[in-house]
Amino acid sequence: MTGTLHILGIGPGDPELITLRAARLLAAAPVFACFAKRGRPGNARTIATPHLNPAAEELRFEYPFTTDLPVEDPRYPAEMAAFYDACASRIASHLEAGRNVALLCEGDPFLYGSAMYLFDRLRAAHRVEVTPGITAMAGCWSRAGLPMVHGDDILAILPATMPAAELADALRRCDAAVVMKLGRNLPKLRAVLAELGLTGRAVYAERGTMPGEVILPLAERDDSPAPYFSLVLIQGRQGQR
Amino acid sequence: MTGTLHILGIGPGDPELITLRAARLLAAAPVFACFAKRGRPGNARTIATPHLNPAAEELRFEYPFTTDLPVEDPRYPAEMAAFYDACASRIASHLEAGRNVALLCEGDPFLYGSAMYLFDRLRAAHRVEVTPGITAMAGCWSRAGLPMVHGDDILAILPATMPAAELADALRRCDAAVVMKLGRNLPKLRAVLAELGLTGRAVYAERGTMPGEVILPLAERDDSPAPYFSLVLIQGRQGQR
Ligand SMILES: C[S@@+](CC[C@H](N)C(=O)[O-])C[C@H]1O[C@@H](n2cnc3c(N)ncnc32)[C@H](O)[C@@H]1O
Ligand SMILES: C[S@@+](CC[C@H](N)C(=O)[O-])C[C@H]1O[C@@H](n2cnc3c(N)ncnc32)[C@H](O)[C@@H]1O
Repeated sequence: MTGTLHILGIGPGDPELITLRAARLLAAAPVFACFAKRGRPGNARTIATPHLNPAAEELRFEYPFTTDLPVEDPRYPAEMAAFYDACASRIASHLEAGRNVALLCEGDPFLYGSAMYLFDRLRAAHRVEVTPGITAMAGCWSRAGLPMVHGDDILAILPATMPAAELADALRRCDAAVVMKLGRNLPKLRAVLAELGLTGRAVYAERGTMPGEVILPLAERDDSPAPYFSLVLIQGRQGQR
Repeated sequence: MTGTLHILGIGPGDPELITLRAARLLAAAPVFACFAKRGRPGNARTIATPHLNPAAEELRFEYPFTTDLPVEDPRYPAEMAAFYDACASRIASHLEAGRNVALLCEGDPFLYGSAMYLFDRLRAAHRVEVTPGITAMAGCWSRAGLPMVHGDDILAILPATMPAAELADALRRCDAAVVMKLGRNLPKLRAVLAELGLTGRAVYAERGTMPGEVILPLAERDDSPAPYFSLVLIQGRQGQR
């Protein structure tokens, strides 16, 4: 009997925002795995700490770069592919030995999650089950008290890394939006929102549902780089009535 | 001391896809409330059944129409507003008597949820807290094994009720999409997807994470009206590589 890989969404930050299913599978797995930056505990691991089985073996998957290498760098795809291959083979050897492995993912695994690259590599030869998680955006809009989409509203989920013109185009064609991966892109996003008259509807959320949570109108946030755990919410039009 | 309204996302269908937080708040609330169609148990109530506190008082909010009145009908907005006013005042009287109320919502409350209309009515005068839920789309893409968005992909969430030309326009400008509220709109959606060459990437999901779940390529689904619990998923382009 070979093991099952359980890819577990563990939610946006509050450890209580894990599902009963993810908590059960995590407690039962003899091996768990998390991605982490070098020298950091790992975001998913931090969130899941109260639910970890102390007797389980831990696999730490450390990203190959100490700083964030831009995706455009020619070394990036090859190094990342080699990294994911190595992670997949570490998981595979446990599965082949009959042990289930729980792979922890911030938010929901299939929404911009690194776990997708291991899913792609392991699904053909192994049993892989995915447990959805509370997304960062849902954690943030719940805490912000922002009903996002009503009736026939369109919701767009956009990375702030898009060029300004494309960001403007996408925002023009939706009713509500979530802008993720802010980083150094706040000044660009702010200019686009101002051009579209959307500044007053934009809410900035940082560390949503976590200790140190910050939620405020984007207009009150300065342009310094945004930390990893941050996004911007723009409520749908029907919610304004 | 007045009570708190807890608006609880209870997930897409599998009762184990509720969060620890929602399960705790539901078990502790002396009163719980759910929306339902006349003569039906109510979807959220059905999902939450294993977690209900048998000693709690139940408020049933029955939608005023036995059949679905089209949103365009002139009677619709007034009747719905009166209905939501009445629901809000039933909740308010419990809160004023010092009792917490748990309002159950399918999926996540702030993503096309009726609970938003009670949130809007009650938030000014009462303590209202929102617990996010696993969305139907995340439940469906996890079960379908469809990693949805990678890197800089854009995800659009669209109601199938949109006119064909607008649906085509929206689908042209995103990488991944979720089309909700299918109903009688499958033939229209199918024609739009064919025109855009997207048919091969579209997956139909019905009753995701529930008993009777159906997940299949949209090409294998006929054009008969889709049941309430159904949506179409289109995976992002990077996921195709
Ligand atoms: C690689 S994506 C992972 C998203 C995750 N899989 C989900 O379902 O939400 C990382 C982005 O999620 C957002 N994010 C994650 N957790 C957050 C939180 N607690 N508060 C605000 N934003 C968060 C940030 O925009 C960040 O750039
Ligand atoms: C009024 S919206 C509510 C959405 C919910 N609040 C959420 O977060 O997913 C109802 C729509 O959700 C979708 N839906 C809800 N549960 C589903 C399920 N288990 N499987 C497939 N689609 C579902 C259908 O498209 C349906 O038309």
